[in-house]
Amino acid sequence: MTRAESRERVLRATVQTLASEGYVRTTARAIARTGGFAPGVIYYHFTDLDDLFVTTARFTSQARLERYRAETDGVTGAVDLVRRLRRLHAEDGAEGHIAAVQELVAAATSSARLAQQVRVETALWRDFAETVLRGLLAGTPFAALALTRELATVAVAAYLGTEMLSHLDADSTAPEALFDAAERVAALADSLHLF
Amino acid sequence: MTRAESRERVLRATVQTLASEGYVRTTARAIARTGGFAPGVIYYHFTDLDDLFVTTARFTSQARLERYRAETDGVTGAVDLVRRLRRLHAEDGAEGHIAAVQELVAAATSSARLAQQVRVETALWRDFAETVLRGLLAGTPFAALALTRELATVAVAAYLGTEMLSHLDADSTAPEALFDAAERVAALADSLHLF
Repeated sequence: MTRAESRERVLRATVQTLASEGYVRTTARAIARTGGFAPGVIYYHFTDLDDLFVTTARFTSQARLERYRAETDGVTGAVDLVRRLRRLHAEDGAEGHIAAVQELVAAATSSARLAQQVRVETALWRDFAETVLRGLLAGTPFAALALTRELATVAVAAYLGTEMLSHLDADSTAPEALFDAAERVAALADSLHLF
Repeated sequence: MTRAESRERVLRATVQTLASEGYVRTTARAIARTGGFAPGVIYYHFTDLDDLFVTTARFTSQARLERYRAETDGVTGAVDLVRRLRRLHAEDGAEGHIAAVQELVAAATSSARLAQQVRVETALWRDFAETVLRGLLAGTPFAALALTRELATVAVAAYLGTEMLSHLDADSTAPEALFDAAERVAALADSLHLF
């Protein structure tokens, strides 16, 4: 295993441990147990747990952002976009990304470095949302409102808030209901050639 | 001071301490210092800190919900609604409600009782948002889409997500920019008699 592979193994184990155990129980020992390596491996790659969490925030956010960029490339309309986002969201859940991010955002209230990293990642997601929205709205009456930046901010905030609430909820059907509703609106928009 | 007044004094001090110190540093001693009473007063009214935090979540949510209900009563249009919401949001910030809720939501990932209370309060806010939206959309083409429930869920999630992000952010101008954008959309909607 190369140094980079070993480091990535620690990061993946951290995402999984955050998702399954929650932030408070994500100790070096718990991460090592999840990943099947000695706790010392963590300190070979990272200064301390704060450093590890900051890097994990960047790692999981950027890996998912790459997938989102690839999967939304060449989107053909509103319904198509909603369907692709639904698939991406299902992947987020399966990888533990959503639960891990929720834990890291919660933890960011007590770590300035983590808060800073969450801000950086949030800005990247807002830029991504803005690009997708600008593509979707180009040539429509909505483009004239020049609201893509604010819509992108609301989209990222709503995504984060929905995940937070469904993470707190035992039954997490809320996102599915929202995708269903979004698909109805998208179908109407597509049939009216709004986008 | 009556028993009820003394209890409410503890709850207000808890909101303020959560807002200024963060959840981790909100100890019985810190709350007592904020409120200017002995720490024993807390345990006269509450079983333990978990009980206090659960009650604080209910207290601050319901006090603000009452103000939101009163202030949005008799709203005359979209611009009027956005202006009232902007005032309410400024009050939320001044009272420490926003920062306290952010801390309680973060803490809810490690307390099942607090998570349950956050779910209850979130449902009440969603119902409130649904009532306001239904009033605004009644008699418009949007009413036929039957999306008020989903829009209300997104509105609550977006509010929570925005607050979370602006709380993490040193500069919290994001909500102001969003209110400005919302007012532009609202003015357009009012001028087109969409609502």
